[in-house]
Amino acid sequence: MRTLPFDKSKLDEIAAKWPTPFHIYDAKAIRENAKRMKKAFSWNKGWREFFAVKAAPNPHLMTLLKEFGFGSDCSSMAELVLAEKVGNTGEAIMFTSNDTPLAEFRKAWELGAIINLDDITHWDALLEAVGPDADFSGRLMCCRYNPGPLKGGNAIIGKPEEAKYGMTREQLFDCYAKMKAAGARRFGLHTMVASNELDPEYIIDTARLLFSLVVELREKLGIEFEFVNIGGGIGIPYKPGQEAMDLEKVSKGVRQANDEILAAAGARGVKLFMECGRCITGPYGYLVSRVIHIKNTYRLYAGLDACMSNLMRPAMYGAYHEIVVPGKENSAETSVYDVTGSLCENNDKFAIQRVLPVLERGDYVVICDAGAHGHAMGFQYNGKLRSAELLLEADGSVRQIRRAETLDDYFSTLEF
Amino acid sequence: MRTLPFDKSKLDEIAAKWPTPFHIYDAKAIRENAKRMKKAFSWNKGWREFFAVKAAPNPHLMTLLKEFGFGSDCSSMAELVLAEKVGNTGEAIMFTSNDTPLAEFRKAWELGAIINLDDITHWDALLEAVGPDADFSGRLMCCRYNPGPLKGGNAIIGKPEEAKYGMTREQLFDCYAKMKAAGARRFGLHTMVASNELDPEYIIDTARLLFSLVVELREKLGIEFEFVNIGGGIGIPYKPGQEAMDLEKVSKGVRQANDEILAAAGARGVKLFMECGRCITGPYGYLVSRVIHIKNTYRLYAGLDACMSNLMRPAMYGAYHEIVVPGKENSAETSVYDVTGSLCENNDKFAIQRVLPVLERGDYVVICDAGAHGHAMGFQYNGKLRSAELLLEADGSVRQIRRAETLDDYFSTLEF
Repeated sequence: MRTLPFDKSKLDEIAAKWPTPFHIYDAKAIRENAKRMKKAFSWNKGWREFFAVKAAPNPHLMTLLKEFGFGSDCSSMAELVLAEKVGNTGEAIMFTSNDTPLAEFRKAWELGAIINLDDITHWDALLEAVGPDADFSGRLMCCRYNPGPLKGGNAIIGKPEEAKYGMTREQLFDCYAKMKAAGARRFGLHTMVASNELDPEYIIDTARLLFSLVVELREKLGIEFEFVNIGGGIGIPYKPGQEAMDLEKVSKGVRQANDEILAAAGARGVKLFMECGRCITGPYGYLVSRVIHIKNTYRLYAGLDACMSNLMRPAMYGAYHEIVVPGKENSAETSVYDVTGSLCENNDKFAIQRVLPVLERGDYVVICDAGAHGHAMGFQYNGKLRSAELLLEADGSVRQIRRAETLDDYFSTLEF
Repeated sequence: MRTLPFDKSKLDEIAAKWPTPFHIYDAKAIRENAKRMKKAFSWNKGWREFFAVKAAPNPHLMTLLKEFGFGSDCSSMAELVLAEKVGNTGEAIMFTSNDTPLAEFRKAWELGAIINLDDITHWDALLEAVGPDADFSGRLMCCRYNPGPLKGGNAIIGKPEEAKYGMTREQLFDCYAKMKAAGARRFGLHTMVASNELDPEYIIDTARLLFSLVVELREKLGIEFEFVNIGGGIGIPYKPGQEAMDLEKVSKGVRQANDEILAAAGARGVKLFMECGRCITGPYGYLVSRVIHIKNTYRLYAGLDACMSNLMRPAMYGAYHEIVVPGKENSAETSVYDVTGSLCENNDKFAIQRVLPVLERGDYVVICDAGAHGHAMGFQYNGKLRSAELLLEADGSVRQIRRAETLDDYFSTLEF
């Protein structure tokens, strides 16, 4: 069973102020993790992680990550504004979007973001958005590559050739040539072909693919690359027995590829960029709820005060999340429950046929690994409200970093 | 190709006032459909449909349905408040929830709603919520039955014995006995074992099952039943070639079951209740969007200004929705597109490999059958905002029945 950064008595204290359900993030663990990651890639002087804002779009978490120089990976107007609000502007923003509205290109341009073009036609769209006289000479411009059948598929993101993202090889050459002709001088290359991947080799192979492409692009187009963004997609061990991605191994493999491919071709000092979300905050966020009903029909059910509005992954992807019952850490796991929420959808189950200690009304149930794609994916279906987000500081104090929704929020777009 | 209640020039007029994407509902068609349904079941003097609010929780749609005496099927605090706001109180509310918080039992009680208990333990929870001195004598009380392995599964809701809803047969007898002992005199029986079902026999069989149970419950417990609620779950023909549920056939079959089982046992005048959502508004709501990008890589992509935040069903369930391109109704369907939104999720596709007319930037793309579980299921993942809802009146006028969200709404639970 997982070790939590809080025990039952601490939860009693917190819940007295902020009723369950709530999300709580462990600031100390997030910092330690960020430090570990930064250290792993320290051989690359320009290494930078751009936190995938969509994983946990909370300005307080973004600010915390900014301490380590982490920028923001944004893909919508709201995310650009969030980045701006926490002081991540200019090249601290990687604007990696697809099917992009012109207004978002304009906003990214105004913020001085690194603009990552998803498609060859987006070059024209960008010009349309920022005007024909835009000065590209100082701008850091990027293209997203889709390797298609050259790269095997990843379980979640699927086969690259069926993915809506990125450009083909031919389009990539075409796009950099067009940007160069328009006066752009500073370039990067990007791909993102994985999601929740745990195999270091998949990430290392991706880096090799991009590094080789950079060598070709430099030669054929006579342009230099400031960075290669190998994307995010680093997974976390949701299931017991899974191992966290070995970042040292990834780093070592990428470094070797850098030396063998980039440096060997004379491309030195190319910065390594990443845009992880899940592995940055995922394991350090918890959905804390309470049992409000125990039901025994054809199965045994533990009904929580949380529901899939707080965490969609089990319902949407059939995802596994570990469950801890504070106060019963040492109780024998003798009962099999479907752990449910109250949504009128039968897939509103946090766990199916899970072996747990005997549960009673009032017990805390903590759902682990809810720190990424958790609160962020919540909906208001069935009139459900999204919960508060709390931050557990290193000194044990707790502060609210997002308030819970109220009925007034739910009704705010209606006039009666 | 579907016939829409608006053409391209009408959309130009509407979109000049309310930019795409938006949901638009056809009031005339909703009314005609409600009338048709009411007529089909007119043999049953007490017939009532309780609109499943979660399908389209908009007070203007609920008010429209109220014209036909349709009540509200609610399962959360927000839905109870919505019903109250449109004047559906008392027994115009069927409170069918599961894993119910005590505060919601209290609210339902205060509104005089028909309370449908999902579990045997909910009887005690209700007493805890409304106090030991609550007077049940005038209250219309109901239990939700889960037939378990007695009823074959439905494709969407799954096998009843794996569903979190309802009571076993033994619990049902127990619960009515307890309610009777507490002074309750007015009863109903409910089940809901289907979702998006198109086979009339499935609904008729469900009615038979419930009617037989009512006969047994009457005999063994000496109580009378005012109604039987056969649930909702009536599907709609999303796919070409599918047929709408034949309501006349359902009605005829249920009537025959009523005569053979209930009336034959002396239970006359039992009211037939239903709680449909999808078949009430589903086919009469449209998601209207525009093409903002055409992309040609390993596949051809039409990128819309709408995304899965506006309609989750294709991404969440792999659901099929018909697509119409106003202005190109008569164009040959010669191109194969993945029709995508801009969310950073590769499952953000409204259609995969769909044959359509050649699309261009600016074309309207109308996604059909978005009138239920469409806007209602929208999330704000990736910083996406939920769109406006419009109502197309019978006279051709259009009014906004929910405004689009703004960035301020998105940031409303945050303090910077």
